[in-house]
Amino acid sequence: MTGITIGDPNGVGPEILLRTYCEKKMTQDIFAIGDYEVIQFCNRKLTLEVPVYRMNSPVDYRKGFLNVLDMRIIDENEITIGQVSRKGGLASLKYIEKATELALDGLISSMVTLPIHKEAVRLIRSDFRGHTDFIAGLCGVKKYTMMLVADSLIVTHISMHVSMKEALERIKSRHILDVIRLTNQTVGKLQSQTRLAVAGLNPHAGEHGAFGDEEIREIEPAVKLARAEGIEVEGPIPPDTVFYQAVNGKYDAVVCMYHDQGHIPLKLLAFDTAVNVTLGLPIIRTSVDHGTAFDIAYKGSASIHSFVNALNLADRLVRSNINEK
Amino acid sequence: MTGITIGDPNGVGPEILLRTYCEKKMTQDIFAIGDYEVIQFCNRKLTLEVPVYRMNSPVDYRKGFLNVLDMRIIDENEITIGQVSRKGGLASLKYIEKATELALDGLISSMVTLPIHKEAVRLIRSDFRGHTDFIAGLCGVKKYTMMLVADSLIVTHISMHVSMKEALERIKSRHILDVIRLTNQTVGKLQSQTRLAVAGLNPHAGEHGAFGDEEIREIEPAVKLARAEGIEVEGPIPPDTVFYQAVNGKYDAVVCMYHDQGHIPLKLLAFDTAVNVTLGLPIIRTSVDHGTAFDIAYKGSASIHSFVNALNLADRLVRSNINEK
Repeated sequence: MTGITIGDPNGVGPEILLRTYCEKKMTQDIFAIGDYEVIQFCNRKLTLEVPVYRMNSPVDYRKGFLNVLDMRIIDENEITIGQVSRKGGLASLKYIEKATELALDGLISSMVTLPIHKEAVRLIRSDFRGHTDFIAGLCGVKKYTMMLVADSLIVTHISMHVSMKEALERIKSRHILDVIRLTNQTVGKLQSQTRLAVAGLNPHAGEHGAFGDEEIREIEPAVKLARAEGIEVEGPIPPDTVFYQAVNGKYDAVVCMYHDQGHIPLKLLAFDTAVNVTLGLPIIRTSVDHGTAFDIAYKGSASIHSFVNALNLADRLVRSNINEK
Repeated sequence: MTGITIGDPNGVGPEILLRTYCEKKMTQDIFAIGDYEVIQFCNRKLTLEVPVYRMNSPVDYRKGFLNVLDMRIIDENEITIGQVSRKGGLASLKYIEKATELALDGLISSMVTLPIHKEAVRLIRSDFRGHTDFIAGLCGVKKYTMMLVADSLIVTHISMHVSMKEALERIKSRHILDVIRLTNQTVGKLQSQTRLAVAGLNPHAGEHGAFGDEEIREIEPAVKLARAEGIEVEGPIPPDTVFYQAVNGKYDAVVCMYHDQGHIPLKLLAFDTAVNVTLGLPIIRTSVDHGTAFDIAYKGSASIHSFVNALNLADRLVRSNINEK
């Protein structure tokens, strides 16, 4: 059973859930974690006529329906389509908290998250950095990273939503080694080959220290330690070459030194189809790789590709874990 | 008349020149600046049978031949195919110096450069940063930037071959404004529309200062000043979105905050076909966007696409300048 958080009630989450159900794109059993009123409002507004069942507890599942575990956070008349609201932020947080709790308790085998709006959440928690950091915090995990998966490219990141200045400070061999290990583990669950590349930080990977020494000081030692552990990994590779090589089959995943190093090539290749996976959690969590798209919310035009891919990937990870046991 | 530097004699420059001549891909009149012995050695080695004419001075041009202004730096027996050598580095430098001098004197209308090997050049000049910086220095120019041109994307850069740490320090509104102006000028010579985007520095362009304030402090003011000058420019745009938008037709060029921000998407889209143009020089200079490829030198397999595109682009820029006058 996969639990799906419906995301910010004012964004495209509810309709993506409903339309994916309509198009019968869900291959596993799922239930949504959100507000029944929100889903029914969206259902009526887009005249989708999905049969929705209101669950009062996670065991309260009925076949043949779109099941929604009703969190009762936001009323229909509090929905402000396409707008940042405190209530939207609060609901977003509560859905995530509940799904994470259910996953930690083993009541769902994986969680898939629909988009939230950071500004809305920050009206409730001003220090909110992002979905991934929040879930990692709920799980009490410090070593984690975000993986983005597209058909032709997989990337992971040494840091995510921090300034470039701070990103540079986070480039430490200990941390890079952790991310290499996490990447190796998860890529190994998805495919038979795990040929990893580690990108450099500086232009041309620093050209032997000519501009920048992070490659020599931090990245090379991490790659050597990982190889000593038996991980098939190369690097540091010049950042402007490594993605071309990976896309053309030389590597199965690229460990990136900062958010945009991985996000720029991945979003160029797979703007609205990529899936976001959090590595290092005690639970399986995948996510769409797009935002709340407030400008097109409740219009029925948001792409469901990323969500469908997120569901499939969660399912593959669950099956891989079962096979390992 | 376009002058072509043949690049490091131990790399793929000579064969790219000869094979492009063979395939009749040069639409303008050209002569090479290099060593006659090197070109003839390559000509024989690859049995290309190109008719080569040795020029002793730039006015000494003969129709129906591949003309080579003979610099007499390196002898045939000093060629060390695929290897870094002092003599290779010295020759590379001398060819560039000569071509730049000819361009500044108006004896050639543009220069197109074939690849050099930085390590070889550094055996002669240890402080050598790169082709572009060297030529800018010869021209006595301080405000310049590198533009990369592919079919679907044009990028320029605030900084090039410096460490990421130094790149962050170079993000100053004054400098960004200069690069916006240079980009606007050159894109305007190549096409009718000049809708420019300026990328942010931090993830999501900093999310209103939540992670990093360079967008607020330096980038936004530069964009505002440029707009006040009548330049059609938007930004800062989140780095992981702007290239997708540009490739899909929303922008004609993207001003990038550091080397890899522009190089990663461009090389992913056009690994061996992109052209490098130096903006801000008093002369027209384009270049191939690849290295000496020592591993395949003198084997006749190096791609000539980037060079052909560099020749064409130099020609378009020359014609645009003539039309302006």
